[in-house]
Amino acid sequence: MMSGHTKDNSVVLRFARQLSRHFSPTWLTCIPLAAIITVIWSTAAMAQTDGVEAAGQVQIILDTIFLLVASVLVIFMNAGFAMLEAGFCRQKNAVNILSKNLIVFAVAVIAYWAIGYAFMYGEGSSFIGLQGFFFNGSSIPYTGEEWYTMDGDTQILNFVPESVSFLFQVAFAATAATIVSGAVAERIKFDAFLIFSFLLVAISYPITGHWQWDGGWLYEFGFHDFAGSTLVHSVGGWAALVGAAVVGPRLGKYHDGKVHAIPGHNMSIATLGCLILWIGWMGFNPGSQLAADAAVPYIAITTNLAAAAGAITATATSWIKDGKPDLSMIINGILAGLVGITAGCDGVSFFSAVIIGAIAGVLVVFSVGFFDSIKLDDPVGATSVHLVCGIWGTLAVGLFTEETGLFTGGGIQSLIAQIVGILSIGGFTVAFSFIVWYALVAVLGGIRVDEEEEFRGLDIGEHGMEAYSGFVKESDVIFRGTATGSETEG
Amino acid sequence: MMSGHTKDNSVVLRFARQLSRHFSPTWLTCIPLAAIITVIWSTAAMAQTDGVEAAGQVQIILDTIFLLVASVLVIFMNAGFAMLEAGFCRQKNAVNILSKNLIVFAVAVIAYWAIGYAFMYGEGSSFIGLQGFFFNGSSIPYTGEEWYTMDGDTQILNFVPESVSFLFQVAFAATAATIVSGAVAERIKFDAFLIFSFLLVAISYPITGHWQWDGGWLYEFGFHDFAGSTLVHSVGGWAALVGAAVVGPRLGKYHDGKVHAIPGHNMSIATLGCLILWIGWMGFNPGSQLAADAAVPYIAITTNLAAAAGAITATATSWIKDGKPDLSMIINGILAGLVGITAGCDGVSFFSAVIIGAIAGVLVVFSVGFFDSIKLDDPVGATSVHLVCGIWGTLAVGLFTEETGLFTGGGIQSLIAQIVGILSIGGFTVAFSFIVWYALVAVLGGIRVDEEEEFRGLDIGEHGMEAYSGFVKESDVIFRGTATGSETEG
Amino acid sequence: MMSGHTKDNSVVLRFARQLSRHFSPTWLTCIPLAAIITVIWSTAAMAQTDGVEAAGQVQIILDTIFLLVASVLVIFMNAGFAMLEAGFCRQKNAVNILSKNLIVFAVAVIAYWAIGYAFMYGEGSSFIGLQGFFFNGSSIPYTGEEWYTMDGDTQILNFVPESVSFLFQVAFAATAATIVSGAVAERIKFDAFLIFSFLLVAISYPITGHWQWDGGWLYEFGFHDFAGSTLVHSVGGWAALVGAAVVGPRLGKYHDGKVHAIPGHNMSIATLGCLILWIGWMGFNPGSQLAADAAVPYIAITTNLAAAAGAITATATSWIKDGKPDLSMIINGILAGLVGITAGCDGVSFFSAVIIGAIAGVLVVFSVGFFDSIKLDDPVGATSVHLVCGIWGTLAVGLFTEETGLFTGGGIQSLIAQIVGILSIGGFTVAFSFIVWYALVAVLGGIRVDEEEEFRGLDIGEHGMEAYSGFVKESDVIFRGTATGSETEG
Repeated sequence: MMSGHTKDNSVVLRFARQLSRHFSPTWLTCIPLAAIITVIWSTAAMAQTDGVEAAGQVQIILDTIFLLVASVLVIFMNAGFAMLEAGFCRQKNAVNILSKNLIVFAVAVIAYWAIGYAFMYGEGSSFIGLQGFFFNGSSIPYTGEEWYTMDGDTQILNFVPESVSFLFQVAFAATAATIVSGAVAERIKFDAFLIFSFLLVAISYPITGHWQWDGGWLYEFGFHDFAGSTLVHSVGGWAALVGAAVVGPRLGKYHDGKVHAIPGHNMSIATLGCLILWIGWMGFNPGSQLAADAAVPYIAITTNLAAAAGAITATATSWIKDGKPDLSMIINGILAGLVGITAGCDGVSFFSAVIIGAIAGVLVVFSVGFFDSIKLDDPVGATSVHLVCGIWGTLAVGLFTEETGLFTGGGIQSLIAQIVGILSIGGFTVAFSFIVWYALVAVLGGIRVDEEEEFRGLDIGEHGMEAYSGFVKESDVIFRGTATGSETEG
Repeated sequence: MMSGHTKDNSVVLRFARQLSRHFSPTWLTCIPLAAIITVIWSTAAMAQTDGVEAAGQVQIILDTIFLLVASVLVIFMNAGFAMLEAGFCRQKNAVNILSKNLIVFAVAVIAYWAIGYAFMYGEGSSFIGLQGFFFNGSSIPYTGEEWYTMDGDTQILNFVPESVSFLFQVAFAATAATIVSGAVAERIKFDAFLIFSFLLVAISYPITGHWQWDGGWLYEFGFHDFAGSTLVHSVGGWAALVGAAVVGPRLGKYHDGKVHAIPGHNMSIATLGCLILWIGWMGFNPGSQLAADAAVPYIAITTNLAAAAGAITATATSWIKDGKPDLSMIINGILAGLVGITAGCDGVSFFSAVIIGAIAGVLVVFSVGFFDSIKLDDPVGATSVHLVCGIWGTLAVGLFTEETGLFTGGGIQSLIAQIVGILSIGGFTVAFSFIVWYALVAVLGGIRVDEEEEFRGLDIGEHGMEAYSGFVKESDVIFRGTATGSETEG
Repeated sequence: MMSGHTKDNSVVLRFARQLSRHFSPTWLTCIPLAAIITVIWSTAAMAQTDGVEAAGQVQIILDTIFLLVASVLVIFMNAGFAMLEAGFCRQKNAVNILSKNLIVFAVAVIAYWAIGYAFMYGEGSSFIGLQGFFFNGSSIPYTGEEWYTMDGDTQILNFVPESVSFLFQVAFAATAATIVSGAVAERIKFDAFLIFSFLLVAISYPITGHWQWDGGWLYEFGFHDFAGSTLVHSVGGWAALVGAAVVGPRLGKYHDGKVHAIPGHNMSIATLGCLILWIGWMGFNPGSQLAADAAVPYIAITTNLAAAAGAITATATSWIKDGKPDLSMIINGILAGLVGITAGCDGVSFFSAVIIGAIAGVLVVFSVGFFDSIKLDDPVGATSVHLVCGIWGTLAVGLFTEETGLFTGGGIQSLIAQIVGILSIGGFTVAFSFIVWYALVAVLGGIRVDEEEEFRGLDIGEHGMEAYSGFVKESDVIFRGTATGSETEG
């Protein structure tokens, strides 16, 4: 901005010098006046610059604070996932699922700080970043006017100090790993899950993230995923799908050719988790604007409308399908709507947001049935919510985005780019997950707890404690091969 | 920064003095100077405008972000109400109450988006708004500098994009419906509640809201209700009162002429709900300022002081009255203080806020006893908290508001306006509620589950699932007519 | 504003015209120039001032809103402590611990408003403040442009309205009292705890706080405690230590020379509490900057890194030490990291933050064992988390702060100042706590419930209600002297 005004200034001075060559002294009286005008102009321009610049600095701080608040909301999603997943599992595995959700965020923070952030946002190629391991903002903590920057290869740095964008990104990264924990719950070994989570957050998630959010090849290709229906949710969903397939279903779930429902132990905390996730998404989606501007409330509304629509259609679908409105489907409908709108929340109309959420709400109910029909046991419905609705939401960008969507005045190009994005990121994540899960099977001698431990519960087996000491629990009816095991716990 | 520019200033002054020494006065005519003055003035004015305007734009974004954060806090209140109401009910009805609180927010979002917002804030008469159904901000999503506006009939539009005010309003609207769910809990049919909630949020709440918050006739009359002691809380409270009266008390509650306490099943989540509501109110009241300014922290403090005072007096009152400090009364005391200060949180002194909260805390304890004495069964005390303390808070505006209150230098006018507001909004809401509840009785063939279902719990009857699978529950001692039913669940 | 300046303009022009009438043409040449220059400069300066000033005003509002959001997060910590402490106690004492955590915040708000704030931030000596009891911001509520101020003796007042700093401070003050409730849980009398909390928040915490945060003698001495490792956490920890020592261990805890683990009743809510505290700390530490600036995200990152590192090392330590990863140690590791980084979060590098958190995570595991070895019974590990790690974090400032720390280029001076701070504040708090606890023993005839009540649970004894009505509870195996008591509750 200053340079722009300096140019104007010199133009005026040159003009004044030309005047002195071509005009008589009589007219030269005008020169000092011209000089005054010049001085005044530059002064006024400086005055203007100062005021605008000061306002610009406040705007940067406002962006920063907004992104910090959004980060806090996204971090709070860990509490949402912990309560949701724990509530949907049996009480004998509650300590285990709670421990996993707690430690996975800690592991993700350290993994992303040490490695992941560099792969995702460091300078490098169009496929991977390679600078900024052990992100340190700058070697000297904040003193005075200084802003933290690392390598400047991302747009974000122009707007907010890199520290806050790092914070927001680390909170995001943790989300992907948390999604996995629900799908493999109630039978995975604690150490296997920890190692997988570390690698997912350190390597896989950041690489596919770099393709898009650091301006990599997918971004160049025209793929659009505003807040991560694919980059976060379906990445977590694919890893969860592969994990659930490799680890196998829980004992008794698909016994005797029938699907046996294994009800969760605490619908109160599951509902709480859903509502925490709802408000967490108010950081997740609007925060992805990475700046405080007028788009932010727009995004917040599309997000809320889709969540509400998903809740209503999932409730109606389960009511029609099963005769009664199932609370777990209301919960999953809300989450389905939220995941579905995540990719396109910035560019679809309010009506489209309602439609996207409504379709997601129907999808999730049938998806849960579908995965059970192929004997893929996912205790909390993570693959249905995050993978299926993540894919749906990514496609929806190509269908409903104003002006570029297939249904809204655009052509097929956007939809093609979306499909390429879904397939390439999905392919990479599935391959990575298979390699890591099978490597863990080989190295750890299996990633699943033994049958006796699964029967008794992972809380005692893995952690030596129970979640609800002092309460009398029912015998857990679980099928072991052909025999029916029954035992009173506690 | 100023000093730097002052230095430049003296340089220019010296230059001007040199000019006056070297040039003869002849040339120094006034005519070109007039032209210069014009140019300079416009430049300086532009400079000034730019800086101030830039700051003003940042302020608008700040208003927006603040209102978004406040909206998130108000949305989070749904989690507070869900935990509070579920905790105060029996475990056999927990899934039902959780489902109601979850779906009611979704229904409210869609109802208010499609219909309610137009009735409340659309252009129309002094009694009802009639424009802006299916609120869409604008037909094209945000692109660049554009701000969303609809019809411009409210002051809010001058300050923040309408999207964010819509978001804040929809979160508010949902609150009113949520209040009802607690009062009719443990016996209402799921579908009856859903339909009532839809109609309350789509029609009744917005109409009475229009009277005041869109500058309607009540506003013209001098009524003051800053954040909704009447417009939100007593509207919900009246609807709850009518609902509880029409549906009747729970089986066994007033058996044999005595009041039988039916204890809630989970005080941990009830307490959590209370604390979530406390912080939710930090969005509810300060957010109602609809702008980020110096009044905001003032409002936050009056709100906190009233909540704290309500907690202390309710605890003391229940301690004195019943011999022991009752946790449910500590909780209700906090909520009483919060509801009580809601109408006047912007205009009373800190001392007055403590007094208003303290009186609300006493009121709520006696009110719970009063409603039981007239056999109006409200499982969570919603009418005592939201209706009684909502009325008290609205009256308190006429008593304690600085300069205009009866006790603080004003006359009786303000109090009269408050009473008119209470009666008119109360009358409309009661009439509307009676009509809708009785219409539902007629259409659905009753709004209450049958006796067997109530006995076994609505979780199995309405949803086919239980909240706490795996735990052994006690037999529920409930009175059916004259006989005592007793059965072990689970 | 524009119209105001347009008016000034015409005044100047009129003045120029008057000049032209009274002075000779010769002089008139200079007068308009001087006048123009003067006018231009002042206009440009005003333009500049206006723009910068307007931006400055927006910055002040931004500081205010940021601090309000931080206050909300700190207030939310009450929910975190309530869930954490209740979850770690037995279900028979849950109502009691929930009641204590709820009422203690209310009491703290009133105590700090009436007395504590004046002692801490009022004008006075270097040892105590003495003005501003019953803080009222100003006698008249906010009208227009006015900012609330009290006495101006602290820097904060220059940046944000005092109301919001009061709100932030009152939320902080409540934290110290809440820490105590966990350590004395399951056997302290309700009234004894209430009175102690009132006095701690009204007198002791503000006095030691004044020494540092209001620029008192410790501040002058060079002590640094950015967000309160010592001023808040170890103050709470010392009071907790003395309380736990005076009230004595729970029955059966150290029976027959062995340490008997008394498991908590609800790990789900304890985990939730931990995650609420994690996000609460995002207000606690960054908010302590007391202004919205670029340091804020830096602080948020050091805080998160330390929490993550503490979680990992505590998990590893407990895994190695006891053979299994203990969920309660994951939780305490997170809190240990958070408490440990609190004093130095503004001035250490990201690497140092990880080291500080990692050491805190190890410390807390061994500290829990240590306190059990000296038979100091602390049901929730509050002394290990808040006192031990609070001391560690305060020392870490003298070791790791960039440029001034012993390991980072500074000398021993900072470390000495830290030790003086720890000892002086610790000494004062211990002395105060002993006096108050023993005075309560004398006045109330003991601060501990009787043996029968402790055996049956404080919920029935102190509050006449149970937390989980409708659930069948196990017999509580508790040791009474030499005999083993066993009884089925409910």
